[in-house]
Amino acid sequence: MPNSINFADSLAAHAMIKGNPVVVGLDPRADQLPAVFTRRFRASRPTWQEVAEAYRLFCREIIDVVAPLVPAVKPQAAFFEQCGPDGMMALADVIQYARHRGLIVILDGKRNDIGSTAEAYADAYLGAGSVWGADALTVSPYLGDDSLTPFVNVARQRNSGIFVLVKTSNPGGGQFQDIRSDGVRMYERVAAYVNSISLPGSGRFGYGEVGAVVGATYPEQLSELRAAMPNCWILVPGYGSQGGTALDVQGAFDERGLGAVVNSSRGIIFAHRQKGYQEKFGEARWQAAVEVATCDMIEDLRTHTHAGRLSAVVEPEA
Amino acid sequence: MPNSINFADSLAAHAMIKGNPVVVGLDPRADQLPAVFTRRFRASRPTWQEVAEAYRLFCREIIDVVAPLVPAVKPQAAFFEQCGPDGMMALADVIQYARHRGLIVILDGKRNDIGSTAEAYADAYLGAGSVWGADALTVSPYLGDDSLTPFVNVARQRNSGIFVLVKTSNPGGGQFQDIRSDGVRMYERVAAYVNSISLPGSGRFGYGEVGAVVGATYPEQLSELRAAMPNCWILVPGYGSQGGTALDVQGAFDERGLGAVVNSSRGIIFAHRQKGYQEKFGEARWQAAVEVATCDMIEDLRTHTHAGRLSAVVEPEA
Repeated sequence: MPNSINFADSLAAHAMIKGNPVVVGLDPRADQLPAVFTRRFRASRPTWQEVAEAYRLFCREIIDVVAPLVPAVKPQAAFFEQCGPDGMMALADVIQYARHRGLIVILDGKRNDIGSTAEAYADAYLGAGSVWGADALTVSPYLGDDSLTPFVNVARQRNSGIFVLVKTSNPGGGQFQDIRSDGVRMYERVAAYVNSISLPGSGRFGYGEVGAVVGATYPEQLSELRAAMPNCWILVPGYGSQGGTALDVQGAFDERGLGAVVNSSRGIIFAHRQKGYQEKFGEARWQAAVEVATCDMIEDLRTHTHAGRLSAVVEPEA
Repeated sequence: MPNSINFADSLAAHAMIKGNPVVVGLDPRADQLPAVFTRRFRASRPTWQEVAEAYRLFCREIIDVVAPLVPAVKPQAAFFEQCGPDGMMALADVIQYARHRGLIVILDGKRNDIGSTAEAYADAYLGAGSVWGADALTVSPYLGDDSLTPFVNVARQRNSGIFVLVKTSNPGGGQFQDIRSDGVRMYERVAAYVNSISLPGSGRFGYGEVGAVVGATYPEQLSELRAAMPNCWILVPGYGSQGGTALDVQGAFDERGLGAVVNSSRGIIFAHRQKGYQEKFGEARWQAAVEVATCDMIEDLRTHTHAGRLSAVVEPEA
């Protein structure tokens, strides 16, 4: 079923209905899976086909747990690609399953290329009718405006979205992103451009189909970038395992609690290995650990950010 | 069979043996395939599975034609991803087949991510023992040094390589790449960093496993960047259909005719649709058009650049 409302509005609706801005990152790693999935592996070294199948089943179970709780999931393409073509089949299944369970699917692929090649990526990934069927894709900006335009055009046609890397959460992110020219840093230039291409597609809540990725590990920049990109949803990675807290991400939200979604991957999907959940649930009850970790993150964000206002957002006039 | 010599030396050896620096870009597009491949499609709209199978067969035939002539091929991931999981199976087959035919395979995926996720991409794609089995992968630099390190480490371990985007061939490439700060442009910063990480892995010809992508559409920058990156192979896209000529790319080579490989995609694989070849060969003899277009490009580069010296390169002392 093709998406019938614009991506930004759909993301807002999902966040309001669930009353929180949590994105669960699906970053499966073979060495951290609960034993119920690895038990089927051959004794010494599993085949990539076995690993891919374990990822598929593991992610489906995660989706079953989190679908009633959160608005979106973010599969990380790299871990599926690591399994070769079998991994890609698993990825397609996971995307379809998450959508079937009513979740928004943001595929984290950080793709890009020039002109007609970018168009092929956009056609491949964006929208329910596409062959992969994601609602949104993360995209890299280094190749410039004409590499982003094909994504924006396809996203607009198909009520889907993209999130352009603006300020990433890794320690080395600043090497090129923080370079200052005429007083303006590279990531600020990218942010200004990203907002300019999102603006024309703005929906009922003022946001368009072009969002931005800004790491939770840079709290000051999150507030600055919220102001600099009034028409862009911000996808915030780096909460939890990477060190970002609810206080760190509060600047990403607007007054209504909209405008930002916050991702946690390991902190949720491998909660059974984390201090606090490990003792309580152990590996046997890993799904319960996922559920409680998700609820704890929701509570944390609702308490310490404007996301607490999400469930009270009043529908604007039509 | 794992690669037994470092990637840079292997690329040099292949270029010297073939006596030219041509990379054939495998960018299949359904609407440009010879009818022999599309005839099998269903009347109205082919399935992605049908398109993927057509790409696989088409690329294998291209490989059969060019394997005796050129050192390397560059499959463009986007067009295979556009076909979904079936396309990824076709891509894996094409990579394996090209390697089996003795070609160096540079996968054009422009991947990157942070830390351990970058490591997953590197593990997935780099080296003959990896699940995809490419010799090299194109990589985007926006995420900074710690996103490149995992690729360099894996490339070094596995005698494989990466090509980092430095200055791309598209008109919009300058939007962020040309930003000047303290007199230094962004792409120059990236170039300096890329050379610094390639240097420690330098092999017999002075080049390391980290190369750079610099478009043929910027002739002055090619010469500057050849000088700025004495330890990096340069992968030059943009020859032919994108407007770059042999004269435009001459600055990319060193005095020995090494240091650069030049890609042409549409100009070779769809030669049967190009002026000059179309009249002579038509669609029925599309393979002959591919062969002659490849030979013409080889001749053009051998005549107008130092690549003409390649077959005379003397093996340095061991």
